[in-house]
Amino acid sequence: MLLPELKLRRDKIRVLMAQQGIDAALITCNANLIYTFGQVVSGYLYLPLNAPARLFIKRPSTLEGEHIVSIRKPEQLPDLLKECELPVPHKLMLEGDELPYGEYKRLESCFPETEVVPCGTALIRQARSVKTEMEVEMFRRSGIAHTKAYEQIPSVYKAGMTDLQLSIEVERLMRLEGCLGIFRVFGRSMEIFMGSVLAGDNAATPSPYDFALGGKGLDPSLPGGANGSLLQPGQSVMVDLGGNFYGYMCDMSRVFSIGKLPDEAYAAHQACLNVQSAIATVAKPGIPCEELYDLAIETIDKAGFADYFMGVEQKAKFIGHGIGLEINEAPVIAPRIKQELEAGMVFALEPKIVLPTIGPVGIENSWVVTTDGIEKLTNCPEEIVEL
Amino acid sequence: MLLPELKLRRDKIRVLMAQQGIDAALITCNANLIYTFGQVVSGYLYLPLNAPARLFIKRPSTLEGEHIVSIRKPEQLPDLLKECELPVPHKLMLEGDELPYGEYKRLESCFPETEVVPCGTALIRQARSVKTEMEVEMFRRSGIAHTKAYEQIPSVYKAGMTDLQLSIEVERLMRLEGCLGIFRVFGRSMEIFMGSVLAGDNAATPSPYDFALGGKGLDPSLPGGANGSLLQPGQSVMVDLGGNFYGYMCDMSRVFSIGKLPDEAYAAHQACLNVQSAIATVAKPGIPCEELYDLAIETIDKAGFADYFMGVEQKAKFIGHGIGLEINEAPVIAPRIKQELEAGMVFALEPKIVLPTIGPVGIENSWVVTTDGIEKLTNCPEEIVEL
Repeated sequence: MLLPELKLRRDKIRVLMAQQGIDAALITCNANLIYTFGQVVSGYLYLPLNAPARLFIKRPSTLEGEHIVSIRKPEQLPDLLKECELPVPHKLMLEGDELPYGEYKRLESCFPETEVVPCGTALIRQARSVKTEMEVEMFRRSGIAHTKAYEQIPSVYKAGMTDLQLSIEVERLMRLEGCLGIFRVFGRSMEIFMGSVLAGDNAATPSPYDFALGGKGLDPSLPGGANGSLLQPGQSVMVDLGGNFYGYMCDMSRVFSIGKLPDEAYAAHQACLNVQSAIATVAKPGIPCEELYDLAIETIDKAGFADYFMGVEQKAKFIGHGIGLEINEAPVIAPRIKQELEAGMVFALEPKIVLPTIGPVGIENSWVVTTDGIEKLTNCPEEIVEL
Repeated sequence: MLLPELKLRRDKIRVLMAQQGIDAALITCNANLIYTFGQVVSGYLYLPLNAPARLFIKRPSTLEGEHIVSIRKPEQLPDLLKECELPVPHKLMLEGDELPYGEYKRLESCFPETEVVPCGTALIRQARSVKTEMEVEMFRRSGIAHTKAYEQIPSVYKAGMTDLQLSIEVERLMRLEGCLGIFRVFGRSMEIFMGSVLAGDNAATPSPYDFALGGKGLDPSLPGGANGSLLQPGQSVMVDLGGNFYGYMCDMSRVFSIGKLPDEAYAAHQACLNVQSAIATVAKPGIPCEELYDLAIETIDKAGFADYFMGVEQKAKFIGHGIGLEINEAPVIAPRIKQELEAGMVFALEPKIVLPTIGPVGIENSWVVTTDGIEKLTNCPEEIVEL
């Protein structure tokens, strides 16, 4: 990646560091290394407030360049900083919500004279929540590739398939369009393969996570998604795979049907589309996320689908979420979230309904906040497509 | 999962807890929850030394049963323990090498009167390193499914394919045989999609991780594996996908060739097979891991392939690794590792060589340690198969 882009990102972090009197950051978790160094390595990006960043690298051992220094273990850091003519920091931030406790303590102990603070994760995630122009361009390309894969879904469906078999063919389409496969998530607990294909009542199986749709999955070691059931006439199927094409987690759901669905399903689907258009009409920089959420609830209440909106027995507590290098970034479009949209934010909006005996309906697209509104990144037909 | 199996596993952990004077464990990381509760949930398994375990669960909200108690936040734990008539622990262990620093500190602060220790990760991983009979049976089934997928590889190859296209077809075969897809790894840094398909010189591209074979990958955000190159006559291709069929990470590599390879490739491949048989002859409970490693090096030195063994520019520092719910468990077969094999351990043995301009050769199988030797779990032909 070009240095001016990396410098832009590092400076976004530095602005936030300066506000908190932090004079250096030590960055070592993958998503943050991709953000600040442009690639995953094993090592540490040391980001001083007032000097160029240094990469202290363990592996790959062959990576060389200006400001790249080889390291075997973190205990060498103080000496290596001295060799780089960098002072020991007064207040150093670490990635306290990502580094395991043991590793955090080890890094902390390398800087006995320094005030070490754990706010690195929160602060870098805040910087990452407003994308650079290049990041928005990566998302545009991801949206196009994601769409191209989904458009081929009807061509891989065969009557008599299970939800799992359909899922596998869609995974293959995504991979052939360039999807990297990895579903990058913030936080230690959420494990997802490439996303989910959910049909019929399986969609209502509650998840261990805060999802509208769960799914039983194939094994208790990986709950969520297809459970191997035959796709039946009268069922809806929602495809919701993560579109990680260039490191950026594009998010998009579309609904298919096995034959025709009962009228209620089309009405519920339309209600979700109406939520989307209502939000797209008012969303722009400065609007608080809670207002968008409240508008969704109001629209759904009027349509009479409140009982089935965002899950049945266990309901998701949001209708949209920021996306970026990870699938769950800021902002979250949820009740009581006062955070306002800003130009450059990218988020997924996913009003969804699960109807008993039929299955999931609704929509999910990825959107970028522009200077005066929001723009859709995942453009393909939104009606229920009969397979 | 049946309670007697879960009790067996919990008791293996309790024995180690007792040795360190620990009277309770709080378990919340996914692999450890699968091990001790049989499924992934969002919540906490509280394991007292001298009373039945309790599950304090956040989600799925519908899960009910004996000793299952609903919880919203960890600060409720002391009161909920009291309601269960369980005492506040004197010495409580947390998963200190997996829990993020922030979460660890939050849990620690819920028990102000307790000595909280971070050794939970190390101790549970020690318990997990020797598998139960049921776990070995899961591995046997995984080995059979893994083999069945690999046997179909020649049928999906088409001349003119790229390494990526072949990888995608093999991923599909694995999924159709039941592979869950998720590649579960211990530690925060290692990110892998389903495994790797490596051809020609791409195999020698150094990895950010301690791997014999790296690969450039498709994007700097996910180094490793196929890079989209055309498969060329005279190249070898190594398929090394993770076989997570029932939660257990079976590991297996096989080598294919595009047309015939130079004689050197077959000789190098045979040298790796010889390492495998030398080790299979002597490995049994009581043998230190370093002896197996030294035997491998001796065998390879005699064959004259030392320069290319386990990588070229950047060499892996092991020839085998324990496997289980995660791909990297104990024991590690590496220099200076005094740990001895025990009956019930399961490990992958992977002597591999990367030959310039040709590509990777060698073998990887998963093995279980029996009472008097080791037994192969991944049984399919080991010669280089011409595509």
